[in-house]
Amino acid sequence: MLWSGWGDPARAAGLPEPVRRLLRETLGVRAPEPPVAGPGEVRLPPVRLPEAALAGLRAAVGAGHVRLDHETRVRRTRGRSTPDLLRMRAGDGSDAPDAVVLPGSHAEVLEVLRACAAHRVAVVPFGGGTSVVGGLVATRRGFAGVVALDLGRLDRLVALDTTSMVAEMEPGLRAVQAERLLASHGLTLGHFPQSFEYATLGGFAAARSSGQASAGYGGFDDMVVGMTVATPRGTLDLGRAPRSAAGPDLRQVILGSEGAFGVITSLRLRVRRAPAERIYEGWRFASFAAGSAALRRLAQDGPPPTVLRLSDETETMIGLAEPDRLGDLAADAGCLVVAGYEGARASARRERAAEVLSALGGVPLGPGPGEAWERGRYSAPYLRDSLLAEGAVVETLETAGFWSGLPRLYEAVRGALRARLGSPLVMCHISHVHETGACLYFTVVTAQEGDPVARWEAARRAAGEAIVAAGGTISHHHGVGRDHRDAHAAEVGELGVEILRGIKDRLDPEGVLNPGVLVPDPAAG
Amino acid sequence: MLWSGWGDPARAAGLPEPVRRLLRETLGVRAPEPPVAGPGEVRLPPVRLPEAALAGLRAAVGAGHVRLDHETRVRRTRGRSTPDLLRMRAGDGSDAPDAVVLPGSHAEVLEVLRACAAHRVAVVPFGGGTSVVGGLVATRRGFAGVVALDLGRLDRLVALDTTSMVAEMEPGLRAVQAERLLASHGLTLGHFPQSFEYATLGGFAAARSSGQASAGYGGFDDMVVGMTVATPRGTLDLGRAPRSAAGPDLRQVILGSEGAFGVITSLRLRVRRAPAERIYEGWRFASFAAGSAALRRLAQDGPPPTVLRLSDETETMIGLAEPDRLGDLAADAGCLVVAGYEGARASARRERAAEVLSALGGVPLGPGPGEAWERGRYSAPYLRDSLLAEGAVVETLETAGFWSGLPRLYEAVRGALRARLGSPLVMCHISHVHETGACLYFTVVTAQEGDPVARWEAARRAAGEAIVAAGGTISHHHGVGRDHRDAHAAEVGELGVEILRGIKDRLDPEGVLNPGVLVPDPAAG
Repeated sequence: MLWSGWGDPARAAGLPEPVRRLLRETLGVRAPEPPVAGPGEVRLPPVRLPEAALAGLRAAVGAGHVRLDHETRVRRTRGRSTPDLLRMRAGDGSDAPDAVVLPGSHAEVLEVLRACAAHRVAVVPFGGGTSVVGGLVATRRGFAGVVALDLGRLDRLVALDTTSMVAEMEPGLRAVQAERLLASHGLTLGHFPQSFEYATLGGFAAARSSGQASAGYGGFDDMVVGMTVATPRGTLDLGRAPRSAAGPDLRQVILGSEGAFGVITSLRLRVRRAPAERIYEGWRFASFAAGSAALRRLAQDGPPPTVLRLSDETETMIGLAEPDRLGDLAADAGCLVVAGYEGARASARRERAAEVLSALGGVPLGPGPGEAWERGRYSAPYLRDSLLAEGAVVETLETAGFWSGLPRLYEAVRGALRARLGSPLVMCHISHVHETGACLYFTVVTAQEGDPVARWEAARRAAGEAIVAAGGTISHHHGVGRDHRDAHAAEVGELGVEILRGIKDRLDPEGVLNPGVLVPDPAAG
Repeated sequence: MLWSGWGDPARAAGLPEPVRRLLRETLGVRAPEPPVAGPGEVRLPPVRLPEAALAGLRAAVGAGHVRLDHETRVRRTRGRSTPDLLRMRAGDGSDAPDAVVLPGSHAEVLEVLRACAAHRVAVVPFGGGTSVVGGLVATRRGFAGVVALDLGRLDRLVALDTTSMVAEMEPGLRAVQAERLLASHGLTLGHFPQSFEYATLGGFAAARSSGQASAGYGGFDDMVVGMTVATPRGTLDLGRAPRSAAGPDLRQVILGSEGAFGVITSLRLRVRRAPAERIYEGWRFASFAAGSAALRRLAQDGPPPTVLRLSDETETMIGLAEPDRLGDLAADAGCLVVAGYEGARASARRERAAEVLSALGGVPLGPGPGEAWERGRYSAPYLRDSLLAEGAVVETLETAGFWSGLPRLYEAVRGALRARLGSPLVMCHISHVHETGACLYFTVVTAQEGDPVARWEAARRAAGEAIVAAGGTISHHHGVGRDHRDAHAAEVGELGVEILRGIKDRLDPEGVLNPGVLVPDPAAG
């Protein structure tokens, strides 16, 4: 992964001329300061870990797995939000961990956590490093140091139960590796978020990820049937059945806990047969409202297509859903729906859905747009790299709500972004449909004006406040991190935060697990 | 509801002669002691509430809604497990609440909880009173008294959002009432547990209920998209979207909390269009293993039938799934599958499932057995009343596990019951199928020998220990209560219990909410 961007630099997307013109002429984008030359140029704070803590960590994982070198620290600094990339391009490595610790087993994770609790060292569990909500930056205040706990060595397919269709897998497995391992058995998880090429299974679970095929496969939380979790107080082993009425579902307490309650060291995941057939196609609707109504009908009649998304007028015009068409800027394109069908009955399901889409005003566009979307499904982060280099700020934010509340939520977010950013380009799509509601996913483009990080963060906060005020949730699938901590607290209320604190008190009494992420500091609150 | 049994006494089922003979000759059942004459004969402890507490409760809900009379207390004493009924028939009302409090609003529930916290009065939230796991008996030790918080006055359909397909309903609504209210809008929840005629929505949520049509509609936890909860510390308002990545899913913390964390005062529930078509039918398989394999295939290929259950050889022989056939005792009946299809595409789904069932060895029995099951779907508790009157002990227990573990779980439970009860009649069915596993539901019949309550409770404990040792969960849909508290603690482990305690500390610092239920007493643990 590029130290200051996404993935393989060779795959960086070029910008078509109409897009460059739009950036310059409509958004006022100008060439930015050039980034520092490489990771070696990033300024890092000195390592501040006490010797006793270092000795404890080395005893836990072996000296070779406690890394203090410059580049290893740079590469575990922050995540992949646009502010993260802008800071890194400017050479700002101030949030770097003091050390990177690479445990090789659950027992070693337990030892690391005990050592950190004993020496008051903050621990940031680190998977693919793809957080876009500040989930990888721990508070230093009150701690003797910060370590990144890199789970990359825990990357095995531990067991496969093809009767139950459950795979036990380790958290450091990247989704790509996991799918490759499963494919050799004719199986799949069916979890394909945009971060697919880099993110890990542990990260998916800790941040409640949801993938592009969630209409068919569910969110990652629907796939987790069991988990082992290391905490400073010992081990949690959860999930003895797909479903239980034995008290609250404690798996759901760890899912979304973003490293603040414990470190997931093993996951039991529902798997499915890899689909024999895949059909992706496009439909055009006259408006976002008309398209929404059609998606809603498909979601409520069920079972819906495996992939289902609807771009609003702006996103359709820009061609964001079909990177081949980027910059096409067809003003009368309406709103694009991409529908995908996977599995043995793909054709039959396609026919049934096509009837509904036609009846509700959809115009079939054939497989072209669906296949273009499929080819480009992981390319947006590469496009962001190109836009950053050009002098634009491009960032995403997402929310979810019940169907009846989506129009208000849509307007609230756009209004807040416009109020803060002047005339940004705001695109939106609905993806991740559910029976009772859906996700709204926004992509915002503006110029790198003034202090672009501060400017974006003010806009993000305003959008978050608008989301909470409009009754939406602050995240459908990106998580909370530090960025949305205040909005999340407003969303769940004072007693909701108290629940989180009550759990954290018991599992992590010294508070060393990812401090500052998700759970507000009681002193600050 | 009958004070010492289930439902309308006029509906008590007669026992066919072959069943009476089996009870006498095989199980050694003899006529029991006759029950006390009526609720007036039940011995209750004196009301022990301090005057100040009573005054606080009256101030909260109005004097007319604080009931101290004998029959009101008798009717809020314990639940509807067989030990509960045996104790009641013997006139033992020792677990009666001191008072029954009937709040009329969320604000009144908050006031009641504050008064109880201030005066150290234990509060047992009370819905339909159908707990079969001791969920309605609070610890008296350390408390000034115990009140039953009867939610029966909170029985409104508050709002209906037919765009989102979400109904806001109050917790005291009985399922029958709720379905009637929804039916007038052409809607249904699709939640039909055996307790359907008496249980309430609040109880379903608090105890993580799952109904007979769960293969098609999911468990009750799948239906809850939002909730309002009153706690001694104030109000929790959860659920702004069908799904969220904003931290752990706190709805899942309240679902299954059995009144120990708060009192649910409002539920936002996913609803569906009432099905236009319903088809129920029967299939015969040669063995429980062959039938299980077929159910598993249907669950994993998905979408499965709406209703799907498989009786083992003994249950099929006795005819428990088809009350019309009860006592038929056909020795070569194999194992009965009941499959039900509801909704617009019922016939097409039936055809697809029939292909799978045939291919895996199923013999179609036509609609007869399916319709018989449907007619008798709520009749088992009436049958229990008749068996108790005859001198038998009949009780159920249930577990769930992953498919590969079910054979071991099945043998473990049967072995534990036999070891404790000599030669009981043990029947089992699989219901509530999931992709990765299923529920095993046992019905046990034995004679009322010696102290029948103590004898059954020893057997229940042994079965629970066997379930935990075999890797199953202590409950798929009955809940934990007091009966399974120790087994649940063993299942989730010490840190799992700590999570529950951490939450309870924050929401209910005085510990007045259903003490002794679900969460083990730290002093005792």
